[in-house]
Amino acid sequence: MNNITPSTHDLWKKVQPIRFVNNQLELLDQRILPHEKKYLTYTDPIKVAAAITNMVVRGAPAIGITAAFGIVLAAKIQESERVSTLDLKSTVDLLAKSRPTAVNLFWALKKMEGVIESNRHHNISQQVELLLIAAHKILTDDIAANKIMGDLGASLIESNSQIYTHCNAGALATGGYGTALGVIRSAFSQDLITQVYAGETRPWLQGSRLTAWELMQDGIPVKISSEGAAGQLLRQGNIQWIVVGADRIAANGDVANKIGTYNLAVLANHHNVKVMVVAPTSTFDLNIAQGEDIPIEDRPMHEVTSLNNQKIAPDECLAINPSFDMTPHTLIDAIICEKGILTAPFSDNISKLLK
Amino acid sequence: MNNITPSTHDLWKKVQPIRFVNNQLELLDQRILPHEKKYLTYTDPIKVAAAITNMVVRGAPAIGITAAFGIVLAAKIQESERVSTLDLKSTVDLLAKSRPTAVNLFWALKKMEGVIESNRHHNISQQVELLLIAAHKILTDDIAANKIMGDLGASLIESNSQIYTHCNAGALATGGYGTALGVIRSAFSQDLITQVYAGETRPWLQGSRLTAWELMQDGIPVKISSEGAAGQLLRQGNIQWIVVGADRIAANGDVANKIGTYNLAVLANHHNVKVMVVAPTSTFDLNIAQGEDIPIEDRPMHEVTSLNNQKIAPDECLAINPSFDMTPHTLIDAIICEKGILTAPFSDNISKLLK
Repeated sequence: MNNITPSTHDLWKKVQPIRFVNNQLELLDQRILPHEKKYLTYTDPIKVAAAITNMVVRGAPAIGITAAFGIVLAAKIQESERVSTLDLKSTVDLLAKSRPTAVNLFWALKKMEGVIESNRHHNISQQVELLLIAAHKILTDDIAANKIMGDLGASLIESNSQIYTHCNAGALATGGYGTALGVIRSAFSQDLITQVYAGETRPWLQGSRLTAWELMQDGIPVKISSEGAAGQLLRQGNIQWIVVGADRIAANGDVANKIGTYNLAVLANHHNVKVMVVAPTSTFDLNIAQGEDIPIEDRPMHEVTSLNNQKIAPDECLAINPSFDMTPHTLIDAIICEKGILTAPFSDNISKLLK
Repeated sequence: MNNITPSTHDLWKKVQPIRFVNNQLELLDQRILPHEKKYLTYTDPIKVAAAITNMVVRGAPAIGITAAFGIVLAAKIQESERVSTLDLKSTVDLLAKSRPTAVNLFWALKKMEGVIESNRHHNISQQVELLLIAAHKILTDDIAANKIMGDLGASLIESNSQIYTHCNAGALATGGYGTALGVIRSAFSQDLITQVYAGETRPWLQGSRLTAWELMQDGIPVKISSEGAAGQLLRQGNIQWIVVGADRIAANGDVANKIGTYNLAVLANHHNVKVMVVAPTSTFDLNIAQGEDIPIEDRPMHEVTSLNNQKIAPDECLAINPSFDMTPHTLIDAIICEKGILTAPFSDNISKLLK
């Protein structure tokens, strides 16, 4: 890693999706960005699970962090009820059911369960404190990992590059700084990037609403592109890298990410444009051999047929709404995690780096 | 054409985008479909040109037909002003500037200019009547061509097929019956199709708003798909044909069509799914050697950053909005026109069939 330039770019702190203050979890409501910037406050883990399902907070690392704080809230309730033993199993189960695809959720819950199990000898109040410390550590470790990945990813980007990104793998999708947008932030702070294109990302418009907003906060030049325009941009030679996040990475390097990622990877392959996936090690699921085995969430049809409660399709019309797709490792040039840069052969290199 | 099954499917008559009654042009306002079905009435050709620019009517054949009736309206005004000679040059120029990509517009205007020139020996009222007859003939010929193309295209579709279509190349985009949707109508009436997927087609949502509506009118099973979901559908082997229309076809078979078509063609190529383009001979521009030379319209950014006057992106955010893209003939399996089925080598076969 000798040739990695450390990034000094710090403006991302304007965007903090998850805060825990005064014994309350605060989530920046991502459903109403960029038009309103409003934090919702949670003390009830049941409502935290609903907030994940309903996408108040979204992004694989961010929902993992949120779930960790959900456990803290459950522990705090039991502490106030003066229980003799913390029993957080039902909260873990509830949070685990909030969304199916991103593995960071299960990873964070397992971390928290580990903290519970290894601290049974402490009193309840100490256990609660240790759970809070653990959740905060998941948050701060995530930000630290993002900064490392940002600089690692930037080391692959040449001067005068134009980058196409999809969905929002930014500060809003993580503890802060972002995965794909972390690489873009680092590369921009090193004067490597002249233009970012944010694919608008139907149906939820994470690209238009969140990524464009985040990058504009930092003064990074961004243009929104509808997804249909990506092929032409690539054919015209305007893009050097597709940079995206991930919701789950299989042992062979296959990547589940926001629906539309696979389209981009096929288009990139057709035009010899490179594809970079940026995700912390908590996104890897070595129990899953290949992408085909990753469970893909189907979300409600109304997300496609309505927008802001306005119908944009005929009444009663059916729609498909898979929330994620699977990109085979053969279409990926580099996977960046905080431990290093992974390239083909992915199975071997993932197994070596993450063991 | 011995093996072509004629279609008996007639329900499409519910959808009539262009009518000329009581000396007025009536356009079904496609900007507010499917929520409202409202005809706007025109007697002024300047307003007809604006209606084309503003997409009250859209679809390559439909804007050609509309422009032809725009000439009729200009002639009628001059008749009422008791001019000694019809002078329609400025109306032709105005209509020709209304949109740049679809060649059917220029084709229809040229047809009408031919009618003007060859009938100078008649009196003004006879000339106006002949122009009206010519415009009606462009409309009825278009419908007849669509029915022929429907049956030709259907002859390539096997039983139990699932079709993916993009944008709206339906009755609404033509005089009636449709090009791509004409093939779908014919094939459905022959029990060949089990499911149609309509790509929603950002930014204008022609797929969700128009194609889904048209197909539902006819009881053809349709599901809306956001464009990002197309790759996964194709990878899962669910689609046998991509069937689309065209706005201009170059002499070598390259096709300009709604932005996003090229993405689909690359995805289809990657998955060995076949691509059918359906367009009348008026869509061919033999003066254009290759697709790269077709002028591509850039439309206003607000079409991407707003929807129904609601902002869906940050204020001041930039966007790209190319309205069309170019699909090279190498990615196309068949081009259907009313004269027959074209396959590779396209240059030779187009030149033979259209000469």
